[in-house]
Amino acid sequence: MAAVKACSVLITGANRGLGLEMVKQLSEVNCPKRQIFACCRDPDGPKSEKLRELAEKHPSIITIVCLDVADPCSIKESAKKVSSLLGKNGLNLLVNNAGVLAHGTLQSTTDQEMRDAFNTNLMGPFTVTKEFLPYLRTAAKASDTSGMSCDKAAVINISSQGGSMSTMPALYLQFPLFPYCVSKAGLNMLTLLAAQELKADEILCMALHPGWVKTDMGGENAPLTPRDSVAGLLHVVSKLTEKEHGGFMDHTGKTMPW
Amino acid sequence: MAAVKACSVLITGANRGLGLEMVKQLSEVNCPKRQIFACCRDPDGPKSEKLRELAEKHPSIITIVCLDVADPCSIKESAKKVSSLLGKNGLNLLVNNAGVLAHGTLQSTTDQEMRDAFNTNLMGPFTVTKEFLPYLRTAAKASDTSGMSCDKAAVINISSQGGSMSTMPALYLQFPLFPYCVSKAGLNMLTLLAAQELKADEILCMALHPGWVKTDMGGENAPLTPRDSVAGLLHVVSKLTEKEHGGFMDHTGKTMPW
Repeated sequence: MAAVKACSVLITGANRGLGLEMVKQLSEVNCPKRQIFACCRDPDGPKSEKLRELAEKHPSIITIVCLDVADPCSIKESAKKVSSLLGKNGLNLLVNNAGVLAHGTLQSTTDQEMRDAFNTNLMGPFTVTKEFLPYLRTAAKASDTSGMSCDKAAVINISSQGGSMSTMPALYLQFPLFPYCVSKAGLNMLTLLAAQELKADEILCMALHPGWVKTDMGGENAPLTPRDSVAGLLHVVSKLTEKEHGGFMDHTGKTMPW
Repeated sequence: MAAVKACSVLITGANRGLGLEMVKQLSEVNCPKRQIFACCRDPDGPKSEKLRELAEKHPSIITIVCLDVADPCSIKESAKKVSSLLGKNGLNLLVNNAGVLAHGTLQSTTDQEMRDAFNTNLMGPFTVTKEFLPYLRTAAKASDTSGMSCDKAAVINISSQGGSMSTMPALYLQFPLFPYCVSKAGLNMLTLLAAQELKADEILCMALHPGWVKTDMGGENAPLTPRDSVAGLLHVVSKLTEKEHGGFMDHTGKTMPW
């Protein structure tokens, strides 16, 4: 299976679920000089224990960084820390993975639930991408290859079928995730527009759907293990080129409808 | 040209642009018992002068209501007032028209600009629709016709091509409206999901694109007059049935891609 060769990778929401599994699989690949910035809200809290154990196993690879995607100040602080540790080659791969699932219908969802989903699922990737863009641009410039790839410079937004205008409505009465779907549709538009904007800098930009995964978010009934979902996602990521730039794909590499 | 026959109509952002023109054209049609609730943020302010003049011309038809779509308390207050004036037949047609245009790119847009666009363009229609839903439901129940129509019970969201994932990205570098497009994409998903949810109540739900219109929002270079855009929109609205439910159309009746 193809492997992601990006030297420096930053992943938000890295303490559990898909984020944690991504850190695990990326740290197990033999890739010299790899730096993984595993970001989470509360690095010292009980919910980050597995990430701390993983970082202890791979101390030269994994750096845990405190980053709350819903807090712009925290994002700024994290960028300061990461930039002090990054080499002159910048940041190759930013994975906006942190997100919250939010159940509810138009009628049952509160104002605050809409705002929470918006803050984490949309404003998070917005602010994180803006804040780390200079380092992604450095990586794109430092690269001696032409074209685009995730090994060179890329923003990967972990989106969802829940954000798909084409397929979600038919699933909605069975999966009433109103605030989640609205925020992910916004994230998909963000991805499309960012792709237009970052094309000139040769920074690849994509939205990926991880499938329905057995995590705290996806629940026990989900058909996919985090391991299989992440193996698929990383395989897809490793193969992306400018041809897929601005696209939306699932963990098997299938193009998703917006 | 077909005319909207809805007895009671509520329009947000009714003091200027498309909202004002909609109130004007709806008050000029001969429709007995018509009640128009023309909502705006500051009914007594200088920006509502034209609406006040119009209401003076049609005092039995137009009621000006103070409603700031970005303020949930104001929405609640407006619903109290409107419900006290509505008959037992409820509210037939809700037009979520209030919106803000917001220029900027991913890189130039501030946090606050994103929040402002989100509050007005997305949270506005979300909260207004929830608040007025009981009166729309009353109208649907009070109707003796089967199926769906805007004369019976409907929510029309004034969206935009700016929210179209299929067509906006190609226009983005020429029209960098990052916060606007992201919020309108969210509004489009809201419309799709609301349509699923309100189907059982026979409340029609649609997103409409008014075209690029010469208003304060659209600017002087726009090719369409508010008069022509609104004439088109109202013609489309008058013809909508359950076949179009959950759809996205422009002012000429053409289906828009999501």
